[in-house]
Amino acid sequence: MTWVTGADGSPYGVRNLPYGVFRRGGQEPRIGVRIGKFVLDLAGAEAADLVLAAGALGRPTLNDFMALGRPQWTAVRQRVTELLTDETHRPAVEPLLVPLREVELLLPFEVADYVDFYSSEHHAANVGQIFRPGQPPLLPNWKHLPIGYHGRAGTVLVSGTPVVRPRGQRASAQGPTTGPSVRLDIEAEVGFVVGMPSALGDRVSVADFADHVFGVVLVNDWSARDIQAWEYQPLGPFLGKSFATSVSAWVTPLDALADAFVPAPDQDPPVQEYLHDTPHLGLDLRLSVEWNGERVSRPPFATMYWTPAQQLAHLTVNGASLRTGDLYASGTVSGPDRGQVGSFLELTWGGAEPVKFADGGTRTFLEDGDTVTITATAPGPDGTTIALGEVTGSILPAR
Amino acid sequence: MTWVTGADGSPYGVRNLPYGVFRRGGQEPRIGVRIGKFVLDLAGAEAADLVLAAGALGRPTLNDFMALGRPQWTAVRQRVTELLTDETHRPAVEPLLVPLREVELLLPFEVADYVDFYSSEHHAANVGQIFRPGQPPLLPNWKHLPIGYHGRAGTVLVSGTPVVRPRGQRASAQGPTTGPSVRLDIEAEVGFVVGMPSALGDRVSVADFADHVFGVVLVNDWSARDIQAWEYQPLGPFLGKSFATSVSAWVTPLDALADAFVPAPDQDPPVQEYLHDTPHLGLDLRLSVEWNGERVSRPPFATMYWTPAQQLAHLTVNGASLRTGDLYASGTVSGPDRGQVGSFLELTWGGAEPVKFADGGTRTFLEDGDTVTITATAPGPDGTTIALGEVTGSILPAR
Repeated sequence: MTWVTGADGSPYGVRNLPYGVFRRGGQEPRIGVRIGKFVLDLAGAEAADLVLAAGALGRPTLNDFMALGRPQWTAVRQRVTELLTDETHRPAVEPLLVPLREVELLLPFEVADYVDFYSSEHHAANVGQIFRPGQPPLLPNWKHLPIGYHGRAGTVLVSGTPVVRPRGQRASAQGPTTGPSVRLDIEAEVGFVVGMPSALGDRVSVADFADHVFGVVLVNDWSARDIQAWEYQPLGPFLGKSFATSVSAWVTPLDALADAFVPAPDQDPPVQEYLHDTPHLGLDLRLSVEWNGERVSRPPFATMYWTPAQQLAHLTVNGASLRTGDLYASGTVSGPDRGQVGSFLELTWGGAEPVKFADGGTRTFLEDGDTVTITATAPGPDGTTIALGEVTGSILPAR
Repeated sequence: MTWVTGADGSPYGVRNLPYGVFRRGGQEPRIGVRIGKFVLDLAGAEAADLVLAAGALGRPTLNDFMALGRPQWTAVRQRVTELLTDETHRPAVEPLLVPLREVELLLPFEVADYVDFYSSEHHAANVGQIFRPGQPPLLPNWKHLPIGYHGRAGTVLVSGTPVVRPRGQRASAQGPTTGPSVRLDIEAEVGFVVGMPSALGDRVSVADFADHVFGVVLVNDWSARDIQAWEYQPLGPFLGKSFATSVSAWVTPLDALADAFVPAPDQDPPVQEYLHDTPHLGLDLRLSVEWNGERVSRPPFATMYWTPAQQLAHLTVNGASLRTGDLYASGTVSGPDRGQVGSFLELTWGGAEPVKFADGGTRTFLEDGDTVTITATAPGPDGTTIALGEVTGSILPAR
């Protein structure tokens, strides 16, 4: 129970408390925690000695706070919970609540490296069937390691940032041409944000996942399928992805998701030792994809073949170091059914089966002016439901 | 002519003047310029009002200085040249010269995004023949666009940093196994460092190359071929590369390379409009690869099919923004002859033809304790030769 008006019973109640960075009027960006329809100004709270975090809450991004490590993350969360539930703190804390409608939300952390995995078996199989019909849908390596690649960190954008339709080269029967992408797509994903770094040459074990990962964001990995198809061999996706990757403004701390861990799908064949997580747990995050306001899919994150702990262990098995602000995303989240896919490529089966909307309109890929919003909920403590921050974006015409 | 002892006639004379970041004893890192066997302390020079750069020279990396843009880069270079050539400045400047042997050289810039291209036709064809014998050596897209991918910025290391042999998964007849890489290789490359950023959604034209690119580094893109071969389909290289990428401690400003631009190889078929650079110029950089002190190759950068201006235009054609500190590397530099290749994969033809050393030893791939050093020279002004900073590294055993 919180004393904040309207927060109890909402998906942003006191069991959630995601972190973000906001700006009010012409003020400097500052760190806040969302509670109901308010942001608690944590920079102000730390300045008033209501919460202690080595000064890290007075910064314009979450990075310094995330670098403090799990004991501090937990201590600050406990203290914020206390401030928002104990009436005796109300007189000091209430002035630090800012209505959400008065703030601009910014990119909550400075992205160090961005890695994108490909960990949904249903997605990988769908893509395989669409692009390589008649061949085995999964490549031979897929069930042995979480396939991934590095994306462009500098074009990770906060939710709400418009996305300019990318130009680029596409194949045609007459040879390549250059122009605006005509197969602009989304990928609904879940991203994991690294707080605690690791040393070069060291490996992070599956067991150490929660020591390094601070929290979770929703991700839309915008994808130009025509550009991607022409460029991706042999070195993988590049310009088909690098124009924009959107993330939610709110980072949900792992502590808020303690009740969302569920057994992940069995893995057969058995995985290599360094990927052996016991227990083998995924997250029961229920995503929803809205295209121009109409829900078109409900991707279930619990169906992901590779877990976030396995992804992190794989990412570092070669001794690659982690930095605070590293972001690794799950890859497109697709369940077994057509109504559960995380990309329009799958939803329209390569563009062959247009989506029909309630108003009679149809779509295969994104048109200028379209808006896509991805949301998610998770089971919270004591039977509550918590919401992850939405990630939304609209398409601007090519320049 | 410079008054600095021993610098005239050396490849680090007053026509070169590369930038770096150094530390002397327990002092804070600071920016310097190399002249002969000395570093000119630019932070000290700016503090003494001998050179003006908006305070950017007093920082621990080159980023703030690189963000100032080409007019400032040129003005500072001219002023430093003046300080080092005009005897009247000698009394004030000489105390700011630090012997190279007294300093530790650090990573000269904070890497934003790291992109690696694949722009040598000879390298791409060699790799194609080794891995896909009997098939066309180049993939259909190769001559239409500079193929590239994002690498890991957080593991870009300054020359001299030891490289821990990576562990990872490799294919075997009995299925994948995990262990230290047994096919550890190098890639001799040239890297371009972005100073001036660009706005999201904008494209940088081939003509604007010199407005954005501050300078050049040598790059060793260490590569674990066994890990790479198993993981790279369909999303490209990941852990086979992400454990370490070494760069020279010295960034050679483009201004020092004005005499090194030469016509690049003709491109047939014709390239798309946005890749059409007139004049079509590459750089006459002559690389040398030493393996345990013995020269094994002389890769000629002038043979690269795609030019750095084309790479930059391609990187941004989709509207991806540039940040100060972005690094893009050329891809392995290989000429037409076996003695000109930039990787040991090519030098030993996939490990089938070991290299024989003068002392009777042989090698296919890197062994623990091996050292590789890449150097390069370029034609400087007035018939001089300038050296690029070397990039060196030794292999430590797997942990």
